[in-house]
Parts: sequence; C-alpha cells; structure tokens
Amino acid sequence: MIATTPPPPYFAVIFTSVRTEVDENYTETSTEMVRLAEQHAGYLGHESAREEVGITVSYWKDLESIRAWKQQTDHLVAQKMGREKWYAAYKTRICAVERDYGVQI
Amino acid sequence: MIATTPPPPYFAVIFTSVRTEVDENYTETSTEMVRLAEQHAGYLGHESAREEVGITVSYWKDLESIRAWKQQTDHLVAQKMGREKWYAAYKTRICAVERDYGVQI
Repeated sequence: MIATTPPPPYFAVIFTSVRTEVDENYTETSTEMVRLAEQHAGYLGHESAREEVGITVSYWKDLESIRAWKQQTDHLVAQKMGREKWYAAYKTRICAVERDYGVQI
Repeated sequence: MIATTPPPPYFAVIFTSVRTEVDENYTETSTEMVRLAEQHAGYLGHESAREEVGITVSYWKDLESIRAWKQQTDHLVAQKMGREKWYAAYKTRICAVERDYGVQI
C-alpha cells in the first residue's frame, strides 16, 4: 500500500534494482529485512513494486536513522548478498522529502 | 531500466498510486506523458514499476523544472483524468536527492 507518512520534512531512500536469476534466500531475506526495518528507530513506512526494475522506497524520520539501518548487522549481510548474488545492477538514492500531497484510502 | 542521473544534488518526484479498474486511455496517456516528460527542460530520467502499488520516480535538475512540468497543459489534463478515473489513491512526494551510490550496467 501507499505509505502513510507524517508531514514533511522526512527522508526517503529510493532503492532501484535489476535482479539476476539467482534466487538463493532472496525472498526470505527480503521479508526479514522488511520485518527488521519496521522495528528500526525512525522507520516511517515503505512502498515496493517490481517489473523490469524493482523500486523500493523506504521513508525515515532523519538521516541518522538511515545511517543506523544501513549499518544494522543483518542488513549488512543482506547488502553483501545483494551485491554478490541477487542484483545485476542497483542504485540507492538518499533524499530529503520537501513536500507531498495526494489522496489516500 | 535504472535511470542514469548526474552527481547530486538533483531532485526526485516519487509518485505512488493504486489503480482503479478504469482503463479508459490510461496506457496511451501514460506513454504520451513519458514522451513529453522526456522532452521537458530539466528532465533527467525515470523509473517505474507496478504490482499492488505503482511507483514512478522521475528525476529533475531543479524544482523549477518540476513546477513547470506539473503545469504543462497536457500533463494537467492527464492529472485530472488520474484523479477522476485511474487512481483510487495516490501520493506525490517532491524530494531533494542528497547522495547516491550503486552499480549500474
């Protein structure tokens, strides 16, 4: 679903990736990373979809939360697996959300 | 594909949406909006995927380009169709990309 986020300013991490054909632990690890991120200090929500590319946007209270999540031990292992096995290409973009609007259900 | 963007700072518009079942002109208009955006001053690239939610991230040189694209005539018509027909819910987030890294093919 569309993440319910507080009024700006807050932060977003846009992770765009192209998968390899290697599935080794991919789904389990993805699910576990979402579970851990949701418990992490400063996590506000996330949105995810994959077709030709996968896009996962996670939302965070501040840059310090993003930095801490990037360094979380299980997440470091997952990032290494990602680089070595699951992703043919990826890009991570750290952003400050300055303004938002929309209609939510 | 993953958008090839210049070194930060640049800007991102994260558009997350949930579709209705109304398809009236949706695909044609989407294709046309991508074509027009690609020609618009300040456009840097975009990424898009849809599963339960659709996520389209477009990248821009500056806020002025984003503002001008939002007000582009054909895009205004498409936005109105979006609100009235195609989207059950949506959220637009305007962001400053502060940092990025990754491996691209």
